[in-house]
Amino acid sequence: MGRISLSAATVLVATVILTLQAQEQSPARKTRHDAKISAAVRAVLEAQREAWNRGDIEAYMDGYARSDETVFVSGDNVTRGWQTVLDRYKKVYNSREKMGTLTFSDLEITLLSNDAAVCLGRWHLQRANDEPHGRFTLILRRTKNGWRIVHDHTSSAL
Amino acid sequence: MGRISLSAATVLVATVILTLQAQEQSPARKTRHDAKISAAVRAVLEAQREAWNRGDIEAYMDGYARSDETVFVSGDNVTRGWQTVLDRYKKVYNSREKMGTLTFSDLEITLLSNDAAVCLGRWHLQRANDEPHGRFTLILRRTKNGWRIVHDHTSSAL
Repeated sequence: MGRISLSAATVLVATVILTLQAQEQSPARKTRHDAKISAAVRAVLEAQREAWNRGDIEAYMDGYARSDETVFVSGDNVTRGWQTVLDRYKKVYNSREKMGTLTFSDLEITLLSNDAAVCLGRWHLQRANDEPHGRFTLILRRTKNGWRIVHDHTSSAL
Repeated sequence: MGRISLSAATVLVATVILTLQAQEQSPARKTRHDAKISAAVRAVLEAQREAWNRGDIEAYMDGYARSDETVFVSGDNVTRGWQTVLDRYKKVYNSREKMGTLTFSDLEITLLSNDAAVCLGRWHLQRANDEPHGRFTLILRRTKNGWRIVHDHTSSAL
């Protein structure tokens, strides 16, 4: 077994500490990191919009975490669990006409941690006879499948 | 300068790594930590309820972060900034009668990180002639003044 000097050991320990600290981010790296997460969240919503507008509610539901804890809140109602949220969408939007054409706008994405983000935005459905619209607050988590909505609170213009 | 064995240096490095990792929490400590945060969040809402029910909207507003980024969302409206949210409350609830008696129930608090949490719950106003009620999704952050609401999405029974 070889021997090293105490100062070499000190350098070794300092290197380990500095390497671990470097895992915390510099401001520039943080900005790039945040921008990457915002882009990932926007991509989830863009995929949802496209799925909706081709009448594919199942694909739209890919934006939500496939979890029994996923919640959709609107009015005085809480719908809990991915499957139940899907069932609700299928019931409320049971024809292509009712689905209309969906747009999202004014997305504001705020990171809450490395694996949680909030997205505030506007939704708008263009339909033959009306234009329901309003706001949503989404909480997204980083899952093994990417960023997914775990909590959706949607409200409508009165 | 003394010399130490390579194996002693290895032990030293391992100790540093293990000490830093120990800063991540054990499951039992995590549960206690989560329970403590849930209790802190509940205390914020309890203080809000008490302030509201003595007609003190300013004290009720202590539950919100005093930030220009604090948002209150309902229907198709976003109210932005602590002061603007206060002004909205004062305008909508411009008499003790309109404020009624507030209760919160079914609070479900989920931690998103060490300094962010979501609270889903029900609100109910008992008034002389009606009982407005619905759900809210609150996002709270740990601030230097304690846990505060930074994002409130509130909806009403139709």
